[in-house]
Formats: sequence, structure tokens, C-alpha cells
Amino acid sequence: MSYARQMLGSHPSDLKLHADAEALAKVIEAAGDCAQACVADTDADLAETHLAEMVACIRLCQDCGDICAVVAAVLSRQASWDLGVVRPLLEACRAICRTCGDECQRHAPRHPHCGVCAEACRRCEQACAEFLTIMS
Amino acid sequence: MSYARQMLGSHPSDLKLHADAEALAKVIEAAGDCAQACVADTDADLAETHLAEMVACIRLCQDCGDICAVVAAVLSRQASWDLGVVRPLLEACRAICRTCGDECQRHAPRHPHCGVCAEACRRCEQACAEFLTIMS
Amino acid sequence: MSYARQMLGSHPSDLKLHADAEALAKVIEAAGDCAQACVADTDADLAETHLAEMVACIRLCQDCGDICAVVAAVLSRQASWDLGVVRPLLEACRAICRTCGDECQRHAPRHPHCGVCAEACRRCEQACAEFLTIMS
Amino acid sequence: MSYARQMLGSHPSDLKLHADAEALAKVIEAAGDCAQACVADTDADLAETHLAEMVACIRLCQDCGDICAVVAAVLSRQASWDLGVVRPLLEACRAICRTCGDECQRHAPRHPHCGVCAEACRRCEQACAEFLTIMS
Repeated sequence: MSYARQMLGSHPSDLKLHADAEALAKVIEAAGDCAQACVADTDADLAETHLAEMVACIRLCQDCGDICAVVAAVLSRQASWDLGVVRPLLEACRAICRTCGDECQRHAPRHPHCGVCAEACRRCEQACAEFLTIMS
Repeated sequence: MSYARQMLGSHPSDLKLHADAEALAKVIEAAGDCAQACVADTDADLAETHLAEMVACIRLCQDCGDICAVVAAVLSRQASWDLGVVRPLLEACRAICRTCGDECQRHAPRHPHCGVCAEACRRCEQACAEFLTIMS
Repeated sequence: MSYARQMLGSHPSDLKLHADAEALAKVIEAAGDCAQACVADTDADLAETHLAEMVACIRLCQDCGDICAVVAAVLSRQASWDLGVVRPLLEACRAICRTCGDECQRHAPRHPHCGVCAEACRRCEQACAEFLTIMS
Repeated sequence: MSYARQMLGSHPSDLKLHADAEALAKVIEAAGDCAQACVADTDADLAETHLAEMVACIRLCQDCGDICAVVAAVLSRQASWDLGVVRPLLEACRAICRTCGDECQRHAPRHPHCGVCAEACRRCEQACAEFLTIMS
């Protein structure tokens, strides 16, 4: 069991007031994983020879990595969410994960590191979408 | 002139395609300043004696600092914005700056550090609001 | 297999020039996990009734979370490390993980969330120490 | 007066126990400015035509931006520094600012955005060096 899930299980406030714990753990884990994958994919992209083809991927991975990292942090502080903040933040995350995942997927056949990042983006996009549904 | 403004002026891509440079510089600077103010205010809050009264302020400052930092970063990468990402991100930032600024303002009469943070939040909230208007 | 490990295995540059891949994956994963645990533990600490006793823990978790997050990012960009940067960064991370882990451990008997965070800190401290040994 | 300086002046704990306030404000401001400049310079580098020549600059700016951001945050929490953490962190920051500043300076004649970033790096490198001297 990940630390994120253990943390949710041992938090003194009553999580059930806020959200479904399993879905929340999935977003926190998926966003953290995607943040790391995007940083690593940017680095791998920069080591490719046909660099001009990778620029869009690099740009998207940078924004996606930053936004996923802040989503993981904000959702990890679950004691007093403001839906007026969390909802647009998750919408931004879902949007950048979709666009970044699409771009990474395009490069996946030639660059396996982009395939790994595409999968991380898809998983985070889906976790954000599910959580947005639960919240509404 | 701040580095943020100098950077906008020396970027090889044509910023005018994306947004008004003056308004953009204001958001980047205001978000960066607010991120720092929120971190410092959290630290100062934790040094106050009536700590229970400061918990809401601490919580809001943590989310506000993280979200402002990512807004400053994402807007600093202006070459290829996706409005479907930038718009909800700015909406999340405007919302947390408003709530955090309100809470900090409540403590300002007794805690000058909260007054400084409230001002930083207000300036960022306003800069986000103006930029959202320009983008729409 | 985590995305971090898959990413290391699909990076176009030759990792062996830099470090042992298994030890590197352990630092990246441990630092990412510890960053999340520290954010979540701060949030849980703020929900405890005896708040004054938790201040040291909250302060340490904030620095530990930020430093672990940057370690995970910098090590994920492994194509061209500068040991003059990576070594002191890992030393800072090992030091804050030790101090933060000690403080969290003190609270573990009464606050299970601190026990989870202590374990995350220990694992990251150890991974940093092992990697520093490999690098020297 | 920046928010960083106003925050230092209104913090309830006695800063003089820790460090010279003027030098501290300089590091916090310089690190925050350098973090932003590095993100913006990376984005501008990616818009240049001779991309292969910019890879080293992009890589260094990414690490430099992340490390400067965490230095600004950790130093903004000045109530209870651990010198065993702060010192190596500042050493890492000084080292990456020097290397990144050197690389940016190489491109400054052709790319003004790299000149701006080089100046931000130099100022942060110097502020870190001065603060390390004060702390020792």
C-alpha cells in the first residue's frame, strides 16, 4: 500500500465529508507519477537526435509536470478543500494530461520513453475525470 | 525593470499572438510574489501564540503558495499556451487568492505579516481577473 | 514496475555513465513518496487538537517535502548531472529527511500519520545515503 | 519594498538569531527571480532555430529553476533553520547558478533572453555566496 493511501487512512479529519477515498488516492498517486514521468520524458526528449520534432512534446511535458505536481500537493491537503479551487485545478490538469498524452502517444512508436509518459498522462487524465464526476 | 518583463521583451516568439504583454508580466510577477508571501506567512503564523486561530490561514496559504508558483511557471512558458489549460488554472488561482486574501485580511489588524500576505493575494487575484478578461 | 523505472530503462542516453540505475530509481521513488507524505502529514498535523506540540513537525515536513520534490525532479533529469550540484543537494535531502524522520517518529505512537511519514523519511534518507556512497 | 522584505520585518520570531536580514532578503528575492528567469529562458530557448546548440542551456535552466525555487521557499521559512540542511542547499544553488550562468552567458551575444537569464543567475550565485559567508 502506498504512503498516499496509508496517509489517507490515518488522517484525523473525516475524509468521507470530502470525497471517496479510493478515487482520491488514485488522483494523488497518478498525478505524482505523471509529474515524475513528464520531467523524465523532457530529459529523454532532449537527448534525441531529431530535436525539432520533440519541441511540442517538451513544452507540454513541462506544463503537465508542474500542474500534476501541484494537484498532488493540493489534494493531499484534504482537510478543508474549496471546490471553487479544486474543480478548476482538476480541469486544468485533465486538459493538460489529455493534450500532453496525445503528443507523447504520437512519438511512442519511435521513442519508448514517450510511450511510458503517454500512459502516465492517460492514467492521470482518467483519475482527474473520475474525481471531477464524484465531486459534482 | 524586472527579469520577467525583460524576458517577455526578448522572447523569440511573437507574444502579441497570445496576450497583452503588460498584463501578462503583471500576473507572472504578482503570482511569484504571492507564492513567496504565502510561504513566509505560513512560517510566521506558526510562530504565533494563538495557533488554533491561525490554522485556516496556514491551510489556505499553503494551497495559495503552490498554485501561485505553478501559475507563474506556466505563464512564463508563453510560446504555446493552451487556453483550455491556462483559463481554469487562472480561475483556480483567482479563487484561492480571494479566499486566502480574505482570511489573511481578518488577521491583519493583529498580525502585520498577514496584512502583507493579504495585499500580495489581492494583487494576484486582480491580475488573474484582468488577464482572464483579456483572454476571453 | 513504476514509471520512474520504466523511464530509466527507456532513456536514450547511457545511464551507466552516471550511476547505478537501481539505486537511482530508489532515490527518485523514495523522494517522490516522501514529498507526498510530508504534504499529507502537515495537513494531518494541522487537524490535531494539541497543535503547539506539532509545530516543529509541521515546519520540518514543509522543508522536507519541498527538498524531496526537487531531488526527485533533478535526479529524473539524469542526462547531464553536475556532481557539484547533485552531491550537496542529496546531502541537504539526507539531512532534512533524518531530522524530519526523527521528529515524526516522536509523534508516531499517538499519531499514526506521523508514523507513516517517519517511514517515508527513513526510506528517503537511506536511499540518499546509498546514492551518495555510490557517487563518491 | 518587496513583499519578501516586508515579510522579514513583520515575522514574530527574532530573525537576528538566524541571519542578517538584508542578506537574507537578497537571497530570497534573487532566487525567486532566477527561478522565473530560468523557466522563461527555457521556453525562449525552445523557440530558437538552432535548437541543438541550446540543449545544454535548457537542461541547466531546468535544474537551476527548480533549485532556486526551493531555496526561496526554504529560506522564507526562517523560524527554525537547520544549518546542516540550509548550507548544502545553498551550495547546490550557488553551483547550479554558476554553471547555468556561464552557459547562458555564452549565448547572450546572440540571444538576449540568455543574457537576462545569465544576469539573474549571477545575482543569485553572488547572493548565495554572501549568505554562505555570513552563516559560517
